[in-house]
Amino acid sequence: MNYSSYLQLERLLSAQTLESERLNTPAHDEMLFIIIHQTYELWFKQVLFELDAVQTALAEDELDDREIADVARALERVLLIFKTLIGQVDILETMTPLDFLEFRDMLTPASGFQSVQFRLLESRLGLTRAERLSYDGRDYDSRLTEEDRARVREAEAAPSLLDQIQAWLERTPFVAMGDYDFRTAYESALDEALAADASIIETHPHMSEEERKTQLEGLKRSTQLLRALFDADRFEELRADGEWRMSREALQAALFIMLYRDEPAAQTPFRLLSQLMDLDEAMSVWRHRHALMAMRMIGRRVGTGGSSGHEYLSRAAERHRVFTDLFSLVTFLLPGSKRPPLPESIKTAMAYRYAGAAE
Amino acid sequence: MNYSSYLQLERLLSAQTLESERLNTPAHDEMLFIIIHQTYELWFKQVLFELDAVQTALAEDELDDREIADVARALERVLLIFKTLIGQVDILETMTPLDFLEFRDMLTPASGFQSVQFRLLESRLGLTRAERLSYDGRDYDSRLTEEDRARVREAEAAPSLLDQIQAWLERTPFVAMGDYDFRTAYESALDEALAADASIIETHPHMSEEERKTQLEGLKRSTQLLRALFDADRFEELRADGEWRMSREALQAALFIMLYRDEPAAQTPFRLLSQLMDLDEAMSVWRHRHALMAMRMIGRRVGTGGSSGHEYLSRAAERHRVFTDLFSLVTFLLPGSKRPPLPESIKTAMAYRYAGAAE
Amino acid sequence: MNYSSYLQLERLLSAQTLESERLNTPAHDEMLFIIIHQTYELWFKQVLFELDAVQTALAEDELDDREIADVARALERVLLIFKTLIGQVDILETMTPLDFLEFRDMLTPASGFQSVQFRLLESRLGLTRAERLSYDGRDYDSRLTEEDRARVREAEAAPSLLDQIQAWLERTPFVAMGDYDFRTAYESALDEALAADASIIETHPHMSEEERKTQLEGLKRSTQLLRALFDADRFEELRADGEWRMSREALQAALFIMLYRDEPAAQTPFRLLSQLMDLDEAMSVWRHRHALMAMRMIGRRVGTGGSSGHEYLSRAAERHRVFTDLFSLVTFLLPGSKRPPLPESIKTAMAYRYAGAAE
Amino acid sequence: MNYSSYLQLERLLSAQTLESERLNTPAHDEMLFIIIHQTYELWFKQVLFELDAVQTALAEDELDDREIADVARALERVLLIFKTLIGQVDILETMTPLDFLEFRDMLTPASGFQSVQFRLLESRLGLTRAERLSYDGRDYDSRLTEEDRARVREAEAAPSLLDQIQAWLERTPFVAMGDYDFRTAYESALDEALAADASIIETHPHMSEEERKTQLEGLKRSTQLLRALFDADRFEELRADGEWRMSREALQAALFIMLYRDEPAAQTPFRLLSQLMDLDEAMSVWRHRHALMAMRMIGRRVGTGGSSGHEYLSRAAERHRVFTDLFSLVTFLLPGSKRPPLPESIKTAMAYRYAGAAE
Repeated sequence: MNYSSYLQLERLLSAQTLESERLNTPAHDEMLFIIIHQTYELWFKQVLFELDAVQTALAEDELDDREIADVARALERVLLIFKTLIGQVDILETMTPLDFLEFRDMLTPASGFQSVQFRLLESRLGLTRAERLSYDGRDYDSRLTEEDRARVREAEAAPSLLDQIQAWLERTPFVAMGDYDFRTAYESALDEALAADASIIETHPHMSEEERKTQLEGLKRSTQLLRALFDADRFEELRADGEWRMSREALQAALFIMLYRDEPAAQTPFRLLSQLMDLDEAMSVWRHRHALMAMRMIGRRVGTGGSSGHEYLSRAAERHRVFTDLFSLVTFLLPGSKRPPLPESIKTAMAYRYAGAAE
Repeated sequence: MNYSSYLQLERLLSAQTLESERLNTPAHDEMLFIIIHQTYELWFKQVLFELDAVQTALAEDELDDREIADVARALERVLLIFKTLIGQVDILETMTPLDFLEFRDMLTPASGFQSVQFRLLESRLGLTRAERLSYDGRDYDSRLTEEDRARVREAEAAPSLLDQIQAWLERTPFVAMGDYDFRTAYESALDEALAADASIIETHPHMSEEERKTQLEGLKRSTQLLRALFDADRFEELRADGEWRMSREALQAALFIMLYRDEPAAQTPFRLLSQLMDLDEAMSVWRHRHALMAMRMIGRRVGTGGSSGHEYLSRAAERHRVFTDLFSLVTFLLPGSKRPPLPESIKTAMAYRYAGAAE
Repeated sequence: MNYSSYLQLERLLSAQTLESERLNTPAHDEMLFIIIHQTYELWFKQVLFELDAVQTALAEDELDDREIADVARALERVLLIFKTLIGQVDILETMTPLDFLEFRDMLTPASGFQSVQFRLLESRLGLTRAERLSYDGRDYDSRLTEEDRARVREAEAAPSLLDQIQAWLERTPFVAMGDYDFRTAYESALDEALAADASIIETHPHMSEEERKTQLEGLKRSTQLLRALFDADRFEELRADGEWRMSREALQAALFIMLYRDEPAAQTPFRLLSQLMDLDEAMSVWRHRHALMAMRMIGRRVGTGGSSGHEYLSRAAERHRVFTDLFSLVTFLLPGSKRPPLPESIKTAMAYRYAGAAE
Repeated sequence: MNYSSYLQLERLLSAQTLESERLNTPAHDEMLFIIIHQTYELWFKQVLFELDAVQTALAEDELDDREIADVARALERVLLIFKTLIGQVDILETMTPLDFLEFRDMLTPASGFQSVQFRLLESRLGLTRAERLSYDGRDYDSRLTEEDRARVREAEAAPSLLDQIQAWLERTPFVAMGDYDFRTAYESALDEALAADASIIETHPHMSEEERKTQLEGLKRSTQLLRALFDADRFEELRADGEWRMSREALQAALFIMLYRDEPAAQTPFRLLSQLMDLDEAMSVWRHRHALMAMRMIGRRVGTGGSSGHEYLSRAAERHRVFTDLFSLVTFLLPGSKRPPLPESIKTAMAYRYAGAAE
């Protein structure tokens, strides 16, 4: 056992074959191009490996309160990996377009779209086939090999992280426990808050009639949106329109966790929800950076794989998101002062056993 | 003279007045909200200060070959400032939406849209009133004070960095010098390259007829696009359509610099062009991060200033760009092997006097 | 209420007075020098503000299980602030020594050593007067004003974060609860592990006698070190020698938390301990970067304040650390497989009340 | 040609064999441990590859003025790689010591000290055997395989980057050209500056006699240090003592470039010198971070390879530096106002031929 054999360095460090050298027109920057993509793929392997552990834990009927800390730790790691992936685009951008042109045509028709690991990652997080942008009018996986396509389809068929998070949220016991029903309590608080807002607008001394009207209409729209979370039929309509992905029960639980995040039993779950939002942001930033880099490298040309390059990537940064529900939920939060207080029984249930009652 | 008096710390560190404290409902996170915005504004002041120096140097009839290194150094600094601005969004995101709600309404109708320094920065870089997105159907500067609006209009009326870079590029002496005309040389090389491409497609043994047709059509479109750079009328049509911002002469010079970047007299100019692209990217990333952060903080609500929040910022990340011409120019590059060689006379003119002749 | 008045921008953005301009020899880079230091001081204010909240929470006789999540959130923020402080040294390094020389002498005898906020921060974290390096043979606070010196002494006299963390750790109920005593359980496990190690060394077939001897001696030394944590007298000797800062009880509790971090009641405490280590690292990296920057700016000269510059800062990066105990504790960890299992009663006490018993 | 075959992904992604799995005690975090080290080694390969190009260019008798831009671009890339290497330590630190212990002993006696690529990198930059810290009283390469040791010795025997930079600096033509001798001009300016400093001290109205004496002594010491750069014998004494690594001629040229960095022919050379300082800093930061991480992972234990871990790495961060001469040189800079003006002839020689005369 030594460092080199353990890390299989002989294998690893001999896996860079420059196409430009094979064709006797060596292009210096091709080495960077290969190596940076290899580090990306190594990191994707690690992300998928962490996702294995996370999804195995979440696949159980009940996520053990101990294991949830492991899940949070794994997501923390994934986030830091994405920070590195984003940051190291800077390295690739030391390759100028002129340098890239020296070997670019030699790579046709290979393309980053053929990274099966990245496709798997997207699918396993919860990006569905229907939500994906097509490119050149074709299925997103049309350029994969038969074998890779099968892997992607398998991932699509299995429960995604989004599905699992939804199921986990739906099991949150505190949302309705004994006499307590969070939904009722929350709806009343919401009513009060909205009535107070309306009253302020209606009686505001320095507001023009036009402004008053605009503000009241805005409030009405907000009210409808907010009510929908507590109205099964209206919610399903919105969900069918693509406004929400998760179930109403899951969203209510997520809202509960966001509001009462400081109770012991909500602390790690709240951290988990925050990390999912962080991850969604990080992937969007990664895609955006990638899109800018592509525009810089190939201008208005099409990508080596025939993709429309920058445009596709840029739209994907906006559209290929998974946990947007958690961002939308923010609309429903009430400030701490208007947040309905938790009954003692729920506080106690959410405390550690040794500590017993809520003070 | 001591540290504190020099930095006017008494003044600086007493300039944080929490609105939530004034209203007797102290919200812990308001301090962060104030301080991070203050650091942003301090950095904007620094960026504008560097831009003063850069624009003063570029305002001269001829940019001294010595001063160009100062310009590059200033831009390097601006770039690193933007990296910091982007990175520190992470700090702001430790404030959760619930924390923000505690004091958010107290800030109405103040809004980040009222940062006159940022508006000045955009205008001075070259973002024109016409290119800007309106929000809520109003002018982008409608929410500024009268005085700030005047400052912005003054900046809009003065030559922008984009204008100055264009003028500087147009003065590049080597593009046409003595017998040499880069445009002629480049067009021939382009013709040859395109003919070679066509020949490869036409004679490729493993290509279906359909694919051959598609590829030839793609090549035809590229050819038209490329030719436009050398056809005054066609170019002006494209420019009127918003495909290009800079003049044809400036673009040709930029292309020359990109192709012959290693000649001594092109080294610092090439660095400058790269930095302008870096800056354009950095500002786009900053806007994108800002848009995600806004979505996270306020969900689907409207911003404190009445802006449509996330959506506006997200579209601005894509649209409010200035130096896109330099990215588009990449489409016109030829690989080194097909790049027309420079005549000795031009190489010599671009060398240092002590070194004299080209190798 | 608008953006500019809320942020007091008029005041903030007029607080940069260039000494070089006052002396009619304007030095462009002095603006950067002032502004970056001002952002540092603004961030220090924020860090102290977070520390206020953290220390107030920890000053109570018992840290409420709800508040600990707030503490962790505040520390997360402080960490990200330090990441920004470290990263933005890059901006300062765009100022070359030559640029700095243009105004450096004008600042004498002002010096970064006079940043009272940074001194307060160090003291409040737990850096004591005795542990501090002197410079130029004088007290570290000799260059502060009388008023600032008083503030520092007051901070030194009050309980530091280190003191408070120690007290909080000492109160950890699970270390000895009912019949269970972690120390006994752990010492047995340690004995077993050490005996197993000795046996492996003694019977290893491919080890030379010399190597065997060396390894056994190493094991013996480790054993003595490990035992000391459970031997009051020996421990106090080591503590008197400066090997440990915290009490034995606090260290044992920290060890317990590190080992059983997944139990619900240990999850947030474990996160807290990790953050304290992160903070200690971040401050060391900040000092190291600062030292390199100073070396770069002034070479072998002395600092504007007469400090020995690079050398002082470099030694401080190694010496001025606070939470090293937590790093040293790592030496005592046992791998999961050798970790003594928790009795059911303790697992139950550490679970949420709703969940009741450990599975 | 597809993405996967081009990047040899099958090979790359199957090169992670967990020792803990082989021994039927799978440790989740071993995957991260392997993958992050593999990305490090991939990046080291890239750094060495860039160094190949840089050293090949510098090995020529004269570095072509065109090629120097390539050298600067390669160093820029290396710097960004080091930024990534430093940043991704964060990922590794998501592995806690407890997680590491699960598989740490299985790796004995493998050790990061066995990374031959890193040893080669150090040697090729210019770290000599004599300057290296020994560890455990043994040669730094004693733990390498015979074959790797041979590679390191070969690298040690070849000219290092430091040697090549020295030779390149010594060839700088402008330091003495025609009638002009930079050394004479600079020494006079230095004399004047020092005399002015002495006069200020001697006549300062608000200085105590003691302070005056201290300041004058400090000035005397500085003067001696500064003079040494122009006194062959004294310089060689200092160099023998390890105060300087490069020759006096090289240092004088570096000083010239730093002072007249804006002249066209000095612009890219100045950038190169700055990058070498950046690289030296980046490697020091990398070592420092590595040392902190090691302390965190293994506390006071010895490393898997028997190294003294943290302490060795921490001292190396301070000692294993290569381009410290450039930092020390800063001591010799004069502010722009006292910088001796360049004669027209030198300005002209340093201008581009097309531009001809100095302004």
